[in-house]
Amino acid sequence: MPDQSPWRDLASLMNPKSVAIIGASQRAPSGGLAREPRGNRVIRNLKNFGYPGRIVAVNPKYNEVMDCPCYPDLASIPEPVDCVVLAVPNRHVPDLLESAAAAGVRAAVVFAAGFAEIGAEGKQRQARLEALSKERNFLICGPNCYGMLNVFSKAPLFASTIPQGFLAGPVALVSQSGGLSTTIANALMLNRHVGLSHIVSCGNQAGVTIEEYLNYLVEDDNTGVIAAFVEGFKQPEKLLPVARKAAEHNKPLIILKGGRSDVSKRAAATHSGSLAGAAEVVDAAFRQGGIVQVRSINELIDSISVFSCDTFLKRYRGGRGIGVLSGSGGECTLVSDAAAAVGLQVPELTEVTKSNLQAAVADFGNMNNPLDGTGAMYDDEKIFPRLLQALIDDDNIDFVTINLEANDPRPKELKSGNRFTAIIENAAAASKKPIATFSSVVGGPVDPDILQPLRKAGVPLMEGAECATATLRNVAEYFEFRKIWQGKAGNESSAPAPHAKLPAGILPAEASFRLFESFGIPVAPTVLTRSADDAATAAERMGFPVALKVESLQITHKSDVGGVALKLRTAGEVRDAFTRIDSQVKAAMPAARIDGIVVQRMAGEGVEMILGIKRDPLFGAVVICGFGGILVEVLKDAAIGIPPLSSEQAHDMLKRLRGFPILGGVRGKPPADVDALCGAIAGVSRLAVSLGSQLEGLDINPLIVLPKTQGVVAVDALVEIR
Amino acid sequence: MPDQSPWRDLASLMNPKSVAIIGASQRAPSGGLAREPRGNRVIRNLKNFGYPGRIVAVNPKYNEVMDCPCYPDLASIPEPVDCVVLAVPNRHVPDLLESAAAAGVRAAVVFAAGFAEIGAEGKQRQARLEALSKERNFLICGPNCYGMLNVFSKAPLFASTIPQGFLAGPVALVSQSGGLSTTIANALMLNRHVGLSHIVSCGNQAGVTIEEYLNYLVEDDNTGVIAAFVEGFKQPEKLLPVARKAAEHNKPLIILKGGRSDVSKRAAATHSGSLAGAAEVVDAAFRQGGIVQVRSINELIDSISVFSCDTFLKRYRGGRGIGVLSGSGGECTLVSDAAAAVGLQVPELTEVTKSNLQAAVADFGNMNNPLDGTGAMYDDEKIFPRLLQALIDDDNIDFVTINLEANDPRPKELKSGNRFTAIIENAAAASKKPIATFSSVVGGPVDPDILQPLRKAGVPLMEGAECATATLRNVAEYFEFRKIWQGKAGNESSAPAPHAKLPAGILPAEASFRLFESFGIPVAPTVLTRSADDAATAAERMGFPVALKVESLQITHKSDVGGVALKLRTAGEVRDAFTRIDSQVKAAMPAARIDGIVVQRMAGEGVEMILGIKRDPLFGAVVICGFGGILVEVLKDAAIGIPPLSSEQAHDMLKRLRGFPILGGVRGKPPADVDALCGAIAGVSRLAVSLGSQLEGLDINPLIVLPKTQGVVAVDALVEIR
Repeated sequence: MPDQSPWRDLASLMNPKSVAIIGASQRAPSGGLAREPRGNRVIRNLKNFGYPGRIVAVNPKYNEVMDCPCYPDLASIPEPVDCVVLAVPNRHVPDLLESAAAAGVRAAVVFAAGFAEIGAEGKQRQARLEALSKERNFLICGPNCYGMLNVFSKAPLFASTIPQGFLAGPVALVSQSGGLSTTIANALMLNRHVGLSHIVSCGNQAGVTIEEYLNYLVEDDNTGVIAAFVEGFKQPEKLLPVARKAAEHNKPLIILKGGRSDVSKRAAATHSGSLAGAAEVVDAAFRQGGIVQVRSINELIDSISVFSCDTFLKRYRGGRGIGVLSGSGGECTLVSDAAAAVGLQVPELTEVTKSNLQAAVADFGNMNNPLDGTGAMYDDEKIFPRLLQALIDDDNIDFVTINLEANDPRPKELKSGNRFTAIIENAAAASKKPIATFSSVVGGPVDPDILQPLRKAGVPLMEGAECATATLRNVAEYFEFRKIWQGKAGNESSAPAPHAKLPAGILPAEASFRLFESFGIPVAPTVLTRSADDAATAAERMGFPVALKVESLQITHKSDVGGVALKLRTAGEVRDAFTRIDSQVKAAMPAARIDGIVVQRMAGEGVEMILGIKRDPLFGAVVICGFGGILVEVLKDAAIGIPPLSSEQAHDMLKRLRGFPILGGVRGKPPADVDALCGAIAGVSRLAVSLGSQLEGLDINPLIVLPKTQGVVAVDALVEIR
Repeated sequence: MPDQSPWRDLASLMNPKSVAIIGASQRAPSGGLAREPRGNRVIRNLKNFGYPGRIVAVNPKYNEVMDCPCYPDLASIPEPVDCVVLAVPNRHVPDLLESAAAAGVRAAVVFAAGFAEIGAEGKQRQARLEALSKERNFLICGPNCYGMLNVFSKAPLFASTIPQGFLAGPVALVSQSGGLSTTIANALMLNRHVGLSHIVSCGNQAGVTIEEYLNYLVEDDNTGVIAAFVEGFKQPEKLLPVARKAAEHNKPLIILKGGRSDVSKRAAATHSGSLAGAAEVVDAAFRQGGIVQVRSINELIDSISVFSCDTFLKRYRGGRGIGVLSGSGGECTLVSDAAAAVGLQVPELTEVTKSNLQAAVADFGNMNNPLDGTGAMYDDEKIFPRLLQALIDDDNIDFVTINLEANDPRPKELKSGNRFTAIIENAAAASKKPIATFSSVVGGPVDPDILQPLRKAGVPLMEGAECATATLRNVAEYFEFRKIWQGKAGNESSAPAPHAKLPAGILPAEASFRLFESFGIPVAPTVLTRSADDAATAAERMGFPVALKVESLQITHKSDVGGVALKLRTAGEVRDAFTRIDSQVKAAMPAARIDGIVVQRMAGEGVEMILGIKRDPLFGAVVICGFGGILVEVLKDAAIGIPPLSSEQAHDMLKRLRGFPILGGVRGKPPADVDALCGAIAGVSRLAVSLGSQLEGLDINPLIVLPKTQGVVAVDALVEIR
C-alpha cells in the first residue's frame, strides 16, 4: 500500500544557505590524509568548492577556525544556521543534535559511526536521532556516513577530501556506503567522464531516508539520472511512489541493491542497521516501478555512463538488436555469448547492408553481425569508417557498438584504439542511431584522449562485453517499461475500497470463497452442508462430479482422517460418502468440532497452480504465483508481484516463471487460459489492497487453470485474518 | 572414447633453432604501427627479443633484409630451417607451404586470414594445409593468427609488435583469437604483474590443434599454468587425455570457451571455421577433466593471477571459506552477495578470534566476517594489521582477502590504498594462509607501487568482488577435483572390451534388455511371448502385476493402437489382455508385422527418470540423465557426462540437477536409491564405451528409481545401432 504521507522539504539539508561545523580545530595538522580532523576537512572542502553561504565553526576554545567565525556553542550563533555538520565522536551526537534543534537549526550531517550498526548501545543512541527526526521534523543525514555534496550549490558537507577538477553533471549518486560513494564517483568522473550533481552518503538513514533523497533528486532541476547503492529501505512503502514520480519526470532510477544473500544481510544489518528484505520481492518491486536494477558496481558505472548520455538516449528508438564492430573475431564470439546471456539480440545484417558493404569494401569477406573488421581494419584506413556506417545504416540494428580498447595499458605508441576516435566522432555527429564503445578487458588506465572526445560526441564508453550488454539490455528494458507505463498513464483502475473488518483467524471455506467471488476470482461451486440429504441436493444443483470435504478448523490434513471423498457421480454416492466421512472423522478425531461437510463441484482438467499472498517485512502484502508440486517446492519457481497489479503486470510476472511454457501446453495438453489466470492474479491483488493490514496471508491451492477460454477455478483456499 | 594416437613433437614450431621469414622487404617504412610489413615486424621482434637462432629472409629481390641473409626461395637456403614464417597474402600460402615441406622445413607460422572462416573458397585453401599437416606431418600454426612467442627460447614468431620489458613467467597463453591474445597478455603483465612463458595465437588450427599445444605446454618445464581462449576444438577426443596429463603434472588448465550461444557459434564459425559444440557438453567435459572453466576475460585474468601465484597455492589447504577485510561496509555486503552467488562460504569468525580482537582493538565493535574496518582503520594505523592478523589466524577462514583499491584513478596524494601495502607484505611473509587483494571497482590504472611488491610477497591482486569470488571458487573447485582425482589415481576400472557388432537399426526390446543386463543395468523382467498361454506362464513365473505391450518395429505409439495393457494381476487377465491386444492392433494396423507381445513385470513406485546416450558432434557419445516429464522437457534440467563415468562422477553429475532434492524424497515420498542410479549411469557409460561408434543413441524412459536400497529398474528402452 503506497504511503500517502507528504514528502518533507529537504532544502535546509540539501541546499543550505549557512552551515555550522562542530569538530574543527585550530590545532590541526592540515592536508594530511588521515590525521586532519574531519571538521577541518569539511571547512576546506567548502572553501575549495567555493561555497557561497555562511560558514561558522563551533568550538569553545577559539574565536575563529580557518578564517571562519567560531562560537562556543550552537545557541551563541547570532542567526541560526540551516545545517550543522557534526564531526565529533558518536557519544556527543544525540545531545548536540537536540541542542541544535533547540537553537533553531533545521538539519544536520552526522559522520560518526557507532549507532544501530554496532548493537544495543548504538541502537539506543540512534533511537534519539530517529525521534528527533520524526517528532521535530529535524533533517539528519547519517549517522555513519560521509555526508552530502550538492555540486551545483557548491555545498560539500562531505567528510572525504574532494579532489580539484570535480566534474559537474546530471548524475546524482546516493550511497548507503560512504566508501563506495567516493569510489563510484571517482570511477565515473575519471574512467567515464561522467559528471555529478550530488553525492549523498546516507549511512544509517536515522533521519532522512533513501526514499526521501530520491524524491528530492527527482524534483531537482540539475539532476537527470539518479543512481543509488542501497542496502536496506527505511520507507519501502514510498519506493514505488517515488519510482512513479521518477517515471513522470523521465529520470532513470538506477539501483544496486546489496544484501541478496543471508550472509550479506548479516553484513548489511551490522554496518548500517538496515533490514534488507527478500531479494525476490525487491526484484519484483524494482521491475514494477521501472527501476533499473544492476547487479554489480561495474554494471552500475556503465549503466550510469549510458543513461546519463543524452545524445545516446535521444537516438534510441527501442528494440534489443545490438550491432557490434570489432577487430577481434574472438571478441565477436564473446560479445555474442554475453548478449545472449542478458537477453539482447544480435540480428543478422540486412541484405541491403550486405550488398552496400560488398560494393564499398570489395575484398572484405565477412558480412556478419558482429562485424569482424579483422586485421584489415587496422591495415586499411578506409575500411573502419565503412564498416561503422554499415552498422549505423542497418535497419535490423537498434544499438551500434564498437569494440575499442580505450584502456590499453601499454605505452601510447603501441596502442591502436586512438586512431579510430576521430572516425567515430565524425560518424556519431551524423548518426541517427545510438553509438557506444566497449573494451574487451575491464581495467587499466582509460585514455582521456579517447574517452573525452567520444563522450562529447555522445558516444559513451563501457568496459567489458558483460557490462556493456547488460547495460544496453537495461536501456532496452527501461524503454519497454516506459512504453507500457505511458500507455496506461491516467488509465489505472481506481483503488478498491477498504474492506470491512473480518474476524481474526482462519476464514471458513465458504466465507473465503465468497470473498474471492467478490473480487472476481472464480471458485468451484461450494456449499457447506450438514446432512447427507442436503449434500445430495447441493450436488444435484451444482452438477456432478463433486467432492466432499469435512469442514473443521481443527483438522488441517483432511484426507488423513478420512475426511475427503472425490469424484462422486450420483446423489447416492454423495449420501454414502457423507455418512462415511462423518463417521470416519468422528472416529479419528473425536474432539474436533465439525462444522459440516462441504460439497464442491470438481473442476475439469487443467494446470494446477498456487496463488497466494504473503507478508514481506519490507513491502507488506505481496502476491505469489507458481505451479503446484515440485516446481514451486523444489525449484522455488515462483512469480512475485506487489499489489495492486494489472492483468498486464500479472502477465509480465508469469512470463518470468521458468515453467511458463507449461501454460502454453506441453505433453499433448491444450494451452491454458492465461488471460483468466492473469485476471485472478489481478483480483487477488485487489483483494490484498482492499483488506490491507488485516490480511495475514492467503493461499489458493490449487487454482486450476482450465484450457483457453474456459477460465480458472479456485478449488481450495486458506485465508488468514489478523 | 579417448584417441590413442601419439602426440606429435612440436619442437620445430615451438622451439625452432632457425627460422625463415617470407614477406619481409628492404623497402619498408619501419616502426609504423600499421604499414610496416608483418615480415619486417617479425624480424624486428626476433632481434629485439634476442633470438639466439639463425634468421634468414626469403625474397627474390634482395640479398639481405634487416641485416639477415636473404634467399630467392626456400630451396636456396643452404641448410633447411626448422620453421618458416609466412607473412604473405593467403593466395600464396598453400604453394609456399608445399615448397617448404619439399625443402625439408618442418614447421610454419601462417598469419594470413582468408581460409575456412570466409566460406567455400577459403575452405578449399585450408584443406591443402590440413592435408599437408596430416599426410606429411608438417606443423602449421594458423592460418588467421598472430603466431607464436616462446619467451624463454626468445623466439617470437609473432605478427604484433612486442613491447619492451616483456615479463617472463610461468603462464602459457593459447588463444584462438590473435587480438585477444595480446589484449589478455598485456593486461596480465601490466595490470597483474604476471609473467608469460608463451603466447600462442593458433587461429584456424589447420595444422597444430589446441589440444596439441596444450600437450606441448604440459610437458614444457618453463610453464606452470596453461590458459586458453578457445572457440572450437579440433581434436576433442584428445581434450580429456591432455587434461588428465595436466592433472598428473599439477599444471592448472584454465579455459575460456566462447561460442555458448547460437549467435556466437555463428560468429566463431565465421571467423575461425570452428565447430563449437553444445555448451552443456563442453561444461561436462571440463568438469570431468578438472579444467578450470571461466566465463569472461576478466575472470580468466584474475584466475591466471591467482593460479600462477605459487605462494598463494602452496598455502591453500582446501575449503571454501573466504575471509574479507574491508574499510567499506558496503563492500562487505556486496562481496558477501558475490560469494554466495558463486558458491563460496563466508563463515563467522571463531570465538577465539573474537575475543583476541576484543583484546587487541578495544573500541572496535564489529567482530564479523566480512570484517568492516570502517573509517577507524584509516584513522588509527594500529587497527589494520590487527584485523588482518585476526583473519589469518582464524580457523574458519580458508582464504584471506583484503579489499584494496589498488586501481584508484585519483592522483597519488588522495589515494589511501598505498599505505597498507607494507603491512600486507609483512603479514604475508609470516602467513601460513593464502592472502589476496581485490578492489571494489574493476578498472582504472593499477598502481605498480601496490601491485608489484604485493605480487612479490605472494599476494595476487584481483579486481571486483565478482571476479575475485569466482576466482577463489575456481581454486577451491580445482583442489576438490585434485583430491578426488588423486584418490582414485591408479584405481580406475579397466575399460570394457569392445562389443561385438550388432545389427543396424532399432534393437528389439528383449535384445536391448539383455544388453543392459550385461552392463549391470537392472531391467524389469521382460519376456517376448507369442501366445496367450505363453504370456500367462511367463507372468506367473515373474510374478504379478505385469504389463503387456505389443512388439513391432512398425509401431511407435503402442497405446494409440490398443497395444498396451497395464496392472494385470492374474493369469486370466493376462490371457484376456493378450487376445484383446492382438485383435486391436491387427484391426488398427493390419499391415504391421507383429513379433509378439512382451510380458513385463511392473516396477514398484519410485522416481521416474530418463537415462540415455546421445551423440555430440564434438565429444561423441555422451550420457544424459534427468527427471521424466516437464523437468527435462520444459526446464531442460539434464545432467551430462562423458563416458567412461565412475559412480562418483555420476553422483557429481546428478548433484547439479536443479531437481536433485527430489531424489532425497519430497512431498512425503521416501528417499530414492541414488547409489543404484549412479550405478546405472556408470553401466550405461560402460555400454557406450564398449559399443563405441556403432551406438547411435540410447534412451531408457522411464528408469524407475525405487526407494533406498531397492535399486532401479529400466522399464522401457530404445537402442539404436548404426
